[in-house]
Amino acid sequence: MHRQFSLQPYSRHYSHSKNCFLDFMELKSDGSIGVNSKYAPKMKAVLEKYQEFKKNETLLFLDFVTVADYLFLLRSVTRIMSALKEHAMYYLAAAVSDFFIPAQKMPQHKIQSDGGLTLTMDQVPKFLKPMVTNWVPCGFIVSFKLETDPALLVDKSRHALTRYGHQIVIANLLAIRKREVILITRDSEFQIKLTEDEIAENIEIESRIIPELTKRHDEWIRNADHVDM
Amino acid sequence: MHRQFSLQPYSRHYSHSKNCFLDFMELKSDGSIGVNSKYAPKMKAVLEKYQEFKKNETLLFLDFVTVADYLFLLRSVTRIMSALKEHAMYYLAAAVSDFFIPAQKMPQHKIQSDGGLTLTMDQVPKFLKPMVTNWVPCGFIVSFKLETDPALLVDKSRHALTRYGHQIVIANLLAIRKREVILITRDSEFQIKLTEDEIAENIEIESRIIPELTKRHDEWIRNADHVDM
Repeated sequence: MHRQFSLQPYSRHYSHSKNCFLDFMELKSDGSIGVNSKYAPKMKAVLEKYQEFKKNETLLFLDFVTVADYLFLLRSVTRIMSALKEHAMYYLAAAVSDFFIPAQKMPQHKIQSDGGLTLTMDQVPKFLKPMVTNWVPCGFIVSFKLETDPALLVDKSRHALTRYGHQIVIANLLAIRKREVILITRDSEFQIKLTEDEIAENIEIESRIIPELTKRHDEWIRNADHVDM
Repeated sequence: MHRQFSLQPYSRHYSHSKNCFLDFMELKSDGSIGVNSKYAPKMKAVLEKYQEFKKNETLLFLDFVTVADYLFLLRSVTRIMSALKEHAMYYLAAAVSDFFIPAQKMPQHKIQSDGGLTLTMDQVPKFLKPMVTNWVPCGFIVSFKLETDPALLVDKSRHALTRYGHQIVIANLLAIRKREVILITRDSEFQIKLTEDEIAENIEIESRIIPELTKRHDEWIRNADHVDM
């Protein structure tokens, strides 16, 4: 699930404002279009993976615009996926707003500007509680907690785990989120931090997060099996 | 001038959420990457124009993030361009917010969500007045007025012309802005409207707006010459 117009898997390597693909293309002498040899190997690797997922349909893209769209979509998807029981992992990485203006409070027309503006926004409903309790009670649920103040990060993450009862919070600070996160469970903290060398090599922190989560999800499945027997 | 991450000229034909360029590429039997023959002619035309502007440096991209960035950048650019006198046209198409939160009122950290939120925003300064009066008094200035309520559109556009003293307002309604606009001057209204056939052929309304503006700008230059003599 992604917000409409967000960068997407595969094509994200060629966003129009950075690495515009037109910069890597060239007109050949025979009149055809090709890819500059300097950039072709990377683009070929991306294209191969892209075509593979298209052929095998291993990714389902669902886009949303409003917070209400997101919540209804999430409920529908998780209810369908609840049949997978403990075998489903829910990786809730979409950065959904904390506040919103409900549809019934929206003005019909553009707000006229003759002075300042005071906006009153409602808090977005805490959907993790019903998701954990009712929608997918056996699922392995990973949420994110983004803060800017390091002093709040771990306490708030742990508070979320206690309040909602899910399995893992990935805690991250806005300024360093691409090189350092903490995986927090009810009784442990596990730091994932890229080295300077890894950052220089454009290693993405997700390539460290996902294997760690997969390992923990496998444990979760094994433990659930034991309970079933 | 464009907002950071806005779609940009040329590459806008291949936005990642619509017409992702990876869908038009293919892996050839010799291991190279090419463009599917169905899409190659259009991409070739776009690429040729893109490479031409790159070579000749006929476009300067300036990006902004905040309203303050935009206003300072606009003042700098217009002051530099004021040397061109009546030969410069200023086409103010960037959709700048009507309201903003000044830097000194910004919280340092992420706003905590424990209930609703009330935001107080200031009105964005009306920069057209100083621009017309002081920054580029001889320039040909075109602004945009976007509304959702048809009843307000023409009156508000005419009010802007009287208030700021510039030359043209392009009035448009959100719902139909890609097929219909009105060019409004102090004493005339000129409607530009695409036919159903033109819409079906993907004609863009800018291809009708720009020639009309160029014609009027030429008149503006001729009239200014007379005044100079």
